[in-house]
Parts: sequence; C-alpha cells; structure tokens
Amino acid sequence: MMLKNNDCGTLTKQHVGETVVLNGWVQGWRDFGGILFIDLRDRTGIVQIVFNPAFNEKALEIASRARNEYVLAVKGKVVQRDQETYNLNIPTGEIEVQVSEVEILNAAKTPPFPIEDGVEVDESLRLKYRYLDLRRPEMQKTLLLRSKATKVFRDYLDENGFIDVETPILTLSTPEGARDYLVPSRVHPGEFFALPQSPQLFKQLLMVGGLERYYQVARCFRDEDLRADRQPEFTQVDIETSFLSQDQLLGMMETLMARLFRETIGVEIPTPFQRLTYKDAIHKYGSDKPDLRFGLEIEDVTDIVKNSDVKVFASVAASGGVVKALNAKGCASWSRKELDDLQPFAARYGGKGIAWITVKEGEWRGPIVKFFKPEEIAALTEKLGVEEGDLLCFSADKLKTAADVMGNLRLKVGRELGLIDNSAYKFLWVVDFPLLGWDEDGNRWVAEHHPFTRPNDEDLPLFDTDPGAIRAQAYDIVLNGYEVGGGSMRIFRREVQEKMFQALGFTPEEAKEKFGFFLDAFEYGTPPHGGIAFGLDRLVMLLAGRTNLRETIAFPKTASATDLLTDAPSAVSDRQLEDLHIRLSAKAVAAQTKSAAPAAAAEAAAQS
Amino acid sequence: MMLKNNDCGTLTKQHVGETVVLNGWVQGWRDFGGILFIDLRDRTGIVQIVFNPAFNEKALEIASRARNEYVLAVKGKVVQRDQETYNLNIPTGEIEVQVSEVEILNAAKTPPFPIEDGVEVDESLRLKYRYLDLRRPEMQKTLLLRSKATKVFRDYLDENGFIDVETPILTLSTPEGARDYLVPSRVHPGEFFALPQSPQLFKQLLMVGGLERYYQVARCFRDEDLRADRQPEFTQVDIETSFLSQDQLLGMMETLMARLFRETIGVEIPTPFQRLTYKDAIHKYGSDKPDLRFGLEIEDVTDIVKNSDVKVFASVAASGGVVKALNAKGCASWSRKELDDLQPFAARYGGKGIAWITVKEGEWRGPIVKFFKPEEIAALTEKLGVEEGDLLCFSADKLKTAADVMGNLRLKVGRELGLIDNSAYKFLWVVDFPLLGWDEDGNRWVAEHHPFTRPNDEDLPLFDTDPGAIRAQAYDIVLNGYEVGGGSMRIFRREVQEKMFQALGFTPEEAKEKFGFFLDAFEYGTPPHGGIAFGLDRLVMLLAGRTNLRETIAFPKTASATDLLTDAPSAVSDRQLEDLHIRLSAKAVAAQTKSAAPAAAAEAAAQS
Repeated sequence: MMLKNNDCGTLTKQHVGETVVLNGWVQGWRDFGGILFIDLRDRTGIVQIVFNPAFNEKALEIASRARNEYVLAVKGKVVQRDQETYNLNIPTGEIEVQVSEVEILNAAKTPPFPIEDGVEVDESLRLKYRYLDLRRPEMQKTLLLRSKATKVFRDYLDENGFIDVETPILTLSTPEGARDYLVPSRVHPGEFFALPQSPQLFKQLLMVGGLERYYQVARCFRDEDLRADRQPEFTQVDIETSFLSQDQLLGMMETLMARLFRETIGVEIPTPFQRLTYKDAIHKYGSDKPDLRFGLEIEDVTDIVKNSDVKVFASVAASGGVVKALNAKGCASWSRKELDDLQPFAARYGGKGIAWITVKEGEWRGPIVKFFKPEEIAALTEKLGVEEGDLLCFSADKLKTAADVMGNLRLKVGRELGLIDNSAYKFLWVVDFPLLGWDEDGNRWVAEHHPFTRPNDEDLPLFDTDPGAIRAQAYDIVLNGYEVGGGSMRIFRREVQEKMFQALGFTPEEAKEKFGFFLDAFEYGTPPHGGIAFGLDRLVMLLAGRTNLRETIAFPKTASATDLLTDAPSAVSDRQLEDLHIRLSAKAVAAQTKSAAPAAAAEAAAQS
Repeated sequence: MMLKNNDCGTLTKQHVGETVVLNGWVQGWRDFGGILFIDLRDRTGIVQIVFNPAFNEKALEIASRARNEYVLAVKGKVVQRDQETYNLNIPTGEIEVQVSEVEILNAAKTPPFPIEDGVEVDESLRLKYRYLDLRRPEMQKTLLLRSKATKVFRDYLDENGFIDVETPILTLSTPEGARDYLVPSRVHPGEFFALPQSPQLFKQLLMVGGLERYYQVARCFRDEDLRADRQPEFTQVDIETSFLSQDQLLGMMETLMARLFRETIGVEIPTPFQRLTYKDAIHKYGSDKPDLRFGLEIEDVTDIVKNSDVKVFASVAASGGVVKALNAKGCASWSRKELDDLQPFAARYGGKGIAWITVKEGEWRGPIVKFFKPEEIAALTEKLGVEEGDLLCFSADKLKTAADVMGNLRLKVGRELGLIDNSAYKFLWVVDFPLLGWDEDGNRWVAEHHPFTRPNDEDLPLFDTDPGAIRAQAYDIVLNGYEVGGGSMRIFRREVQEKMFQALGFTPEEAKEKFGFFLDAFEYGTPPHGGIAFGLDRLVMLLAGRTNLRETIAFPKTASATDLLTDAPSAVSDRQLEDLHIRLSAKAVAAQTKSAAPAAAAEAAAQS
C-alpha cells in the first residue's frame, strides 16, 4: 500500500521535479484523446494527476476504472503545466502530477449528492450521509476553524493561569429539573443521574476549593423544545475566577475575544468593548442583545404624548406604560400593504399594534396625526429628528412589550435599509442586569440570572425598599445581535445570600433543603468569585459566517433532537430496561408500534 | 474590597520593599508577645504575614478574629526576615509581609480535616467535602498536572495537523449495550439515547469524511461493576488517522509520550519504545501488559518435563497445556508459610497450584524433587540458571492460566526482592494481538478487539485454515505494567470485512442488521485508517505518582458509582418520569422506601 508523503492541495511550482506519493479521493476525471486527467482531493485541496500511456500503460488502465470518490494512491513526478492550461481557480493550478504508479485503495458507490461546496441538497439528506457531507471543503474548513478557535481559547486561558478541569457529566438533577436529561442508575434502583445544563455548581465549588482560575470546554445538555438555533447538547467555554473584579474579568475576556478573531479569521477587534446598561439597551435598542452594527435608536416619547388625544398613548402612560418611537428614515415610501403588515408584526412580539405616521411633501399623514396638538408635533419633530420622507412608528405598551416590538422593528428596518455592514463585528457588554424579576403567576420575586448572582454593592439597601431596582453584577457579551456569552459575579458572603433568599421568599430551612451541600460548601471560607461562559457553537457560527448552528457541529441533531445518521434515539431491549429498573409508560408502549431499533450500530463502540 | 496584585507563594527577596496586596486563606497563626503571625495560603503557596501593633493596631485587632480557612485581603510591605527566622521549608521563607491594612473577606467554620498534604483522613470524608480536599496542595498540584498534560497532548496533536472534533454524547445504544448508560427521550416516547463507551464509530466516520487526522479529549461512559481503578465516566485522548501505517502512527505516539513526560515531570523517555508481540509478552512475562522495569523472565519448560514422572506436568503437556517456570532468585529462604501461601495465590488466578523447589546447600528440596530424573534436573538447571539459594516455581496448566499465575508471581517476587525501580518509566508496545478468540460458551469465534480491526495482511489466508492464528494490527501501549492506551488499524476493504464477518459467523444480512449505517458508510470510498486512545486518568495517575484514579479527578465517584459530594444519583419527581415516558420497576419502587432526594442542589445549574 503506497501511503502519502505529500498533500494534494499544497503542491506548487516549488515541487516541480520531485517524485511524490499522494493519497486522495477522485473529485472528477476527463479523458482527452487517451490521456486521463483526474482531480485528486484530500483535506488540503485538489491537484490534477495525469495518466499518460506514454508513461505507464498499466497505470492508465487501472486508473480508468476509478470513479468519483474512489480512493487512490499514486506515485508520480510534479511537472509544470503548459501556461495555457493553468487553472487559476486552485492553488495547485500551475502544476500537475505525471503518474507512474497507481493503486486503487478503495472503490465507492455514487454518492447521493456531489461532494462540492454550495451544493443545493436537502439538509436531512446531508445529515443522513454526514460522513460524505463532511468531505465538502466548506464543512472541513468550518470544523478546522472550530478546532482552531477552541485552541485559541485554551492557549490564552492557559497562558493566563487558568486550569482546565473536567467536571462530571453524570451528576445531580436540579430541584426543578424540567430540562434535565436523566440517566437511570443500574446500581441504585429508582435513582437517576442528570446530565449538566452547565457546570455551574462545580465551577463555583472549584473556587471554594481554592483553584482561583478554572476553565473547561464543557459539553452541556438541555432537554427543551428546540428552536432552529438550539441543540440538545452544546458546548460552552466555561470560566470561573476568584479575587478578580468584574472589570478585570471583562477586560481579560475582551483581550481573549480580540485574540480569537485575530488568530482565526484575521480580523482586528478594537478593545475595550462598548458597555451598555441593560436599561439603556432596552430603552435605546429594544433588546438586551442589540445589534450595534447600525444606529437607528429607539426614542422614548412618553413625556411628549402622555397627555395626547391619542387615547391609547395617554392611557398607557397613565397606567405606567411607555410610548416608544422609531424614526424609520426614508421609509415614508412604504406601500399601504407594508404599513398594514406592521400590525401582525407587532402582534408577533406581543404588541397590540404599531401606530405610524409618514412624512411626505412636508405633511404628516396617518390615522393618528389628527389627534396631535401642534406642540406635540413640534416636540416629536425635534426628539425624533423628523425630516421629509420619514416613517414614524410608535408602540405604546408595558416597557417590555413596547421595547420588544420596537427592537424587532429596528432590526427589520435596519436590514431593509441596508444599514447593516455584514463584514463588521460589533461587540458590546450589556451590564447591570436586574437581579430580580416579578413573577406575575407566582406573585413573587424570582432570580433573573440565578439565586447566587451578586447584587451591586451600592444597591444592597434596596432589598428592603425596592427589590426590583437592584442591579446584578451580571453581564452578557453580545456580538452583532447575538448573545455569545454571559456570566456574573457570585454572592460569597452569607449575609448577602440570606438577604437574597429572603427576597425570593425562602426560609432558611427551605434554602437548605433546596440548595443542600452547595450552601454548606459556602460556610468554609468562600473567596469572592465570578465567571462567564461563552457559547462555542454560536461563536464559531459567527466566525465562519454561517447562520445555522448545525453547520458548526460535526454530528448535530435535528430540531426534533434526532440524529439522522445513527437514527438515535432508538428503542432498546427489555433486558436493558430491566437492568436499569425502569419500564416504559403506557404512552411509550403505544408509540412502540413503530418497528423496533432498525439501526443498531457496531459493537465497536466499546473499543478503540 | 482589596483584590490581589501578587500571589502568596511566589514572593521572594526580590520583592523586598514592595507594597503588595494579597488574598488567601489562613493556614495557621501564632501570637508572639502581642505580634500576630499568620500563614496565608493561595494556590501558589504560603507566605508569612505579620500584624504588629507598632504598624497598625486596628489591623491587628481585625486579624485576631481570623481562624483557619478564613479568607483575608491584606496590604503590606515585603520585608526580609532576620536570618535566624528564615523558614527554609517554603520558597517564601526568607521574607514576610508587614501588614498595614486587612479585610476579612469571609469567615470559615472549622474544616472537618486539616488542609494539608499527607493528611490521614477517610477517603469518603474527603469526597464528601471535596471542595476542602481540593485546597490541599497535593490535590491542586495533581489537577494542575492533569491540565498541563492535556495541554501537551493538544499542542502536539495540533502541531501535527490533528483536528479537535467533538462527537456526540447523546448517541445510539450498541447492539448488546449491556454496559451502556441510557437516556430516555422526552420527544420520542419509548426511545433512548446512550452515552458513548468511546467515540469509536464517530472517529471512523470522520475518517470516511476525509478529515485525515482527528483527536478529541473525550468523555466516555461505562456502566459496569466498578473495580478500584475504574470510574463510570472516564476520559480518553482519542485519536484516529488516515493514510498512515501502523509504524508511522506508533512512532508519532512515542514522540508524543516523550514530550508529555518531558514537559510535565521533566523525565526523558528514550524512543523508540521496545515492542513485544502479544505471544512473547504472555510467554515471557505472563501478561499482555508486562512491567518491564525488571527482568525475571518466565521460562517454558514443557519440553523438559513433558515425560517427567511428575504426573501433572506430563498430563498437562500431553493435553496441549504448558509448564511454566520462574526462578525466584534467592528466595530459597522463604518460610514454610510463604511457600504454603503459593497455593491460594495460584488459586486467585485460576491456577491449580504452584509446585516449588528450593535450592539450599547445593541440594534441591521440595515435594516434587524426587520425581525428577537427573537429566531433567540438569536441563532445568541450565534453562533456569539455577544457583544456590534459588526458589523454582512451576505452573502447569492451559497457557492462559499458567501465564497468569506465573505473571502475577513474577510481580510479587519482583516487588518483594525490591527489583522494581520506582523512579523508572518503562514504556513498551505490545503488538500482534490475536484477531479472534474462541468463545467456549458460544462455541464460536469472537473479535478480540472489535469486528473492524484489521488483520495482518500476510495472515489473511489463515481465515480459511487457522483463524485463531491470525494476528491483528492491534497494539497496546504499556507503562510500568499498566495499559495506558491501545488501538488498531481498521478494516477498510469490503472483501476483508466480509471474511471477518464470515469468521464471526454473521451472514451478510445479520451484519447489515447489526452494523447498519456504519457499514453503509464504508461503501463510499473509505480510506485506510487506524487509531489509538490513551486513558488520560491513568496516565495522569502515573505521572503524579499516585496509585488511585480518584486522586486525578476533581469530582470522582466511588466504587459504587456514587458522588458523595452531591449525593448523585438521586430519586426524581414523578413529574419528571412522566415527562420522559418511563416508570420505575417494582424493585425500584421498593427501594424507594429510602427517603426521597435529600440533597437537591441549586437551580443555578442551568445558568452561569
């Protein structure tokens, strides 16, 4: 068996005259007057290899049997091509290899889709034949990028004294546990492990354990209804530190992000990143993960219209709501249909509607214009910078809803007006998230982040007066409108933790029952600590310029949490269930009418 | 809050005169005539800090309240100690820090065991309070070593063109699946994911996918009865390559191991490693993972004693068995009890006994001596190099049993004679494992490694004549008597795979049913490939000079697969089971008399 001493894609004129051995897959072939040209592909690229009866008739004969995706081993001499046959589309286009010896290492059936970039194939077919899909250069490039990105994370963290620690994957179900994947125990009948939704408990315990700086590229699991951009298992770069301030931690992470983008895709990211309070983000951009690649800020016009004759404005303002406005510059030309579509658009985000005004030929037009007093029009003109051709949009609602409606409208208008620079990478921190949120259903305060998130020191007195106004030392890192990471400083002092539990309505006994060993651990000298976690899948997606998380994962699952390649999950034998001390529910048994376990895979999985 | 600008353990005379801020834990304190000396510990080590009323009375007063494991922040000046107070046991022993400002960051209860190395504590107490156990320097050192070892693996593999690819943890149950951990699916009632026992299928599919060089530091899971040195979840450095010969792969791995030992513990490992065939390993050392830090080879004396009057020797030889002998040099002085204990020792490894001869005062003594003919004694003397004071031990049995008994006796004698250099690291490859083993119960051939292991090319004709003699291109890497890794070249050609399935007694239809999509994948141009996996936990154990895998894992499980810290696994709510479409078996329900879920942990797990 001839094994390669060179790669296909890296041969250049500098190799001319050398005898090389190549291994690769047949990308395509052409016969020109008895001379056979094959494009041979490996993971580095493609090179043209030539079978000429003048060199070796036997080799030509063997190679003639090869078809696409056959695996070949060839030995031959690198020669320069005639200039008129240069192929400038590929890096090896100025040379070719004249083959003196060939071996067919393996045959191939015709693949179900062409092995090339930009191929238009149904995604489910690609996932079923993922091993062929992975041969496409763009898939290999993405996996290589992911590998490289992970390496940059590791190198930076390693250089900065972070210790890579593996935390358990078979662990404890959380108190609610609604999204936990469970694993029945064979040794302990009726008991279950849970797969971690994050290593949160363990990373904090490592800080209690004095490790000071921890990181892990951690697999996490969440059993929830899947949206297009979620996977049941996902990877986060998980980080926790002791004895650092929030500013110090955020500064380190900025340096890390700048290095990541420089070393993977050669893009310079300026630091420090912009910081925006949660409040400003919601008010100005209608989102806690605003896309700052463009401006188009949302304005609060509640004060201007609160006494307006537009009834809905006045009544919303009177009941504590807000009136938010967006000036869609130059959109007065929208068609009646486009304007009408604003109503279902608002409804999609829970809004009751969007009031609009067009500014055409110096005149304000629209259903609500007649209700405005001249001074209101003047104030709005100034506040919104109204000019000829503008479209003014209003949402009057509770802040959360109005912001959501206007934030999404901002994105829609930004896209339609072409305001978004697709080559830009705009990072920002959103900080000062609220510590507590009011749960209408439960009629109680709940932790917005988690119950161990540290409040801002200066807000501690608000526990007694205005819990909803307490800001948390919690932060998200946002890139181009995607949340790519987030974290918080943690409560480490007992008296603060007690105040927090009190606010959440837990008695000390309830807290103990709920958080058990974790609270015990905090009694033994817990250092001030905090951390962050980055969503690796999403970061790689953005680095690779993709729009689908599945493109960044070698073997992803579908939106219904199925692996189309292995056909997992699958039915298992009664014997297995018995060993695990469980039975199927009646519903599951009924579902079993579908045939049992078609795609059992190899025993091999236990070995390497 | 004063946050540190220096570490405790790295302050030296070079820092004298500097004002530093330190954070750390109180390791101990002494009051000498109103001056308080505290040993402050962080992950870098310990430094002495001094509270002197002459400097700051208030600081002394605050610090006086501190007890062991309190967390302090101090600001102070680094000064040189009087020479007579140097503490040469610690690197910072020539200086101390005169504290001008102090803050108690956190209090601590008295820990259940002292936070220091070499502490004699019941392991279960250490595991329950793992967060305190991890504060001990030797635990931190081990975790740091593990982190570093992983980094060396990654750096080397990265530099050599290996791509780090994450493969699924929620995957398909294997056909037998007896050791699989299962995960019920919420979306697909009655169906289950399995946690991987290794990424074997996926790494081979990545080769089919053209990635050529893959690695992953992969978490693997095996639900089996746990021995002292097994964990239900464990980590392997998983590697697969295309277009490399076995020799090339093994050579790379030797370079990797040499680098690992150099960069983690500063030990030079000579390459290439010794290679031993499986057959030689069994015959000479009675083990497929021999400890070659010492000689003491086992000899085969079947030919010498096959016609002996020692009945058991003759009858075993006649029935195809072997007689193995070990010359325990200088052990003729063993007591009668020690000699008698050889019988239960043999029984432990399935042997019927060990025949022995002592050589004392020029005379052979022992129950069997009288049956030997002079020429047999002469031949044995020569073969075994018998000298005054030797103890000759014999095991007559089937090869497997005799080898096992003698192999373990060799280790026992080697240890007792002090032949083992505990500072030595002796690597070797065991190669040419048998491809097939005869399953007495099933009366059929089974794959010794897995059904995709490639046979040696020259042994292919043996499929038709002597399947048991076929050697596999499979290899283990052994260090000091531990298997630290293993792998194989894989079958990539259809006709060889068919021969293999035939030998295993599978019809093409059965093979298809059993291995499904995996065999399909091999139809599309599979490259020659092979790989290896290293057991990271065990390698780190050996690097750290430990004897227990749990010492190398931050949060390990006990031999009964329990996490004593979190108390996982635990009972879960009926609601959770219902969501997953499963019920408990009657046995599990009965077991539930034990109180439900005492140690529910934090909601926090879903967040970071």
